[in-house]
Amino acid sequence: MKFEVTILGSSSATPIFNRNPTAQVLNINEKLYLIDCAEGTQQQMLRFDVKASRIDYIFISHLHGDHYLGLVGLLSSMHLNGRKKTLKLFCPPPLKEIIELQLKYSETTLNYIIEYVFTDATTKGLILENQDIYVETIPLDHRIPCTGFLFRQKKRLKKLIKERIEELEIPIPYYSAIKKGSDYVTPDGTVYKNDTLTTEPESPKSYAYVSDTIYSDKYLMQITNATLLYHEATFLHDMLDRANQTHHTTAKQAGEVAVKANADKLIIGHFSARYKTLNELLDEAKNVFPNTELAVEGKTFIISE
Amino acid sequence: MKFEVTILGSSSATPIFNRNPTAQVLNINEKLYLIDCAEGTQQQMLRFDVKASRIDYIFISHLHGDHYLGLVGLLSSMHLNGRKKTLKLFCPPPLKEIIELQLKYSETTLNYIIEYVFTDATTKGLILENQDIYVETIPLDHRIPCTGFLFRQKKRLKKLIKERIEELEIPIPYYSAIKKGSDYVTPDGTVYKNDTLTTEPESPKSYAYVSDTIYSDKYLMQITNATLLYHEATFLHDMLDRANQTHHTTAKQAGEVAVKANADKLIIGHFSARYKTLNELLDEAKNVFPNTELAVEGKTFIISE
Repeated sequence: MKFEVTILGSSSATPIFNRNPTAQVLNINEKLYLIDCAEGTQQQMLRFDVKASRIDYIFISHLHGDHYLGLVGLLSSMHLNGRKKTLKLFCPPPLKEIIELQLKYSETTLNYIIEYVFTDATTKGLILENQDIYVETIPLDHRIPCTGFLFRQKKRLKKLIKERIEELEIPIPYYSAIKKGSDYVTPDGTVYKNDTLTTEPESPKSYAYVSDTIYSDKYLMQITNATLLYHEATFLHDMLDRANQTHHTTAKQAGEVAVKANADKLIIGHFSARYKTLNELLDEAKNVFPNTELAVEGKTFIISE
Repeated sequence: MKFEVTILGSSSATPIFNRNPTAQVLNINEKLYLIDCAEGTQQQMLRFDVKASRIDYIFISHLHGDHYLGLVGLLSSMHLNGRKKTLKLFCPPPLKEIIELQLKYSETTLNYIIEYVFTDATTKGLILENQDIYVETIPLDHRIPCTGFLFRQKKRLKKLIKERIEELEIPIPYYSAIKKGSDYVTPDGTVYKNDTLTTEPESPKSYAYVSDTIYSDKYLMQITNATLLYHEATFLHDMLDRANQTHHTTAKQAGEVAVKANADKLIIGHFSARYKTLNELLDEAKNVFPNTELAVEGKTFIISE
């Protein structure tokens, strides 16, 4: 099952050096999930050929402008382009008021429904379950209420051992139950145990999106063993005081989170406008956690194939 | 005195085909005046090297998103970049509520003052006068309250006839009064009439920004003799019904406005997303008013040198 994330923005606070502020799009089994939606996200979607019509879920981590100011424009464009499908929007409660105020003064009635699911930054919660995934909020510690999001694949079905199935001439209608773990019982009562008919599925993959936060242990447990961890890394570690003061993380600390969480791979992003080039940030994180990459705009990271 | 306009966005409704929605920046005597501020305006300013710190005046024509959704991001960036200078914002009254709501939830207190000047779309009004220009609102006829803006240079001073001034050995402290029209009286009482000492200044130039509107005579008188007229031209004339229904103008009609207003030159913009290329729109307007150009992003039009 396809499970991958494409970076649309990697800057913090303001657009600069051709870096847009934060937005990412997940493709999970050919459904698109947008995470954060800074100003310019629509333009980035055009640039990287991401179709807005394929997005049914949008997740907003918090109400700093560099994470949501592109949303009203995107919602309007969806409307103008004839969207009818309901859109699910996972966000801090005040975003509804912000959106509705702007629609009111533009005298716009969207021709589709926004189904709001409000996040609570004080406690983790399961906010979405569909046929492919679970999504949980990750409570973070920023200057204003802020959550990350943990996307976990559902447990996959077992794989049939083809030769054994054919040899026993098991009828097709039984396959589904066997994949789910049932034994096979023949008409004459012979029992073939499930573990002789199947192999274990791949373990479910996960993507942890850790948005703006001060370095903290509080979300470590929840993101343990993440297949891919995105973590903000606004500053180099020589700016630790500034990071603490503004409730952000350094690149070194992001590496430490990845080590402690036993992540397979780390992406760092949300780079301060003070860094024209990003190599130092990457090197600093890699010194702690070698399997780190930069959140480069337009780049797609594969979580599961 | 420098008086020129640079196009930052020329699309209507949504960003498309590398066209951003509406924004323009005027440079008048090295002060910058931003007109409309769609999503992505900050990115366009970076691209075309327009310094936000030099903008002291922002004008918003109306509250459709394609004319103002980049504003809160720009205001935030000005704050983050240390702005202290007061910013004058000319806009429909509800924009204050929209801005303040977003600042409230991001827990941001700007470190500079926004001085609001509210526009009234029902009647023209002088909203700004400084040492260089007058700015008037142009009441338009759109689906929601909408104004254009007319920028008029102040009357220039007369020019001294250098040879005559030197010949009469007129002391420098008299120059200012003579430029303003005074005669020169020598210590022995001889009077030299002003028109023998000066030539007439160039006539004041003007820029008329006609934002979203249905084709209408109601603003014609006000924009008469504009040096440069920007007029929206959302559709080709074969879409006249759609233009009327959505309160927009066709390219042909924009040309007709330029003819009736006796403009020196016309720029058309606010192009519908249905037009991938713009030559047909340009040709249609030029058939009526030959001195027409397209509002191409990054292009600067000189109104006065």
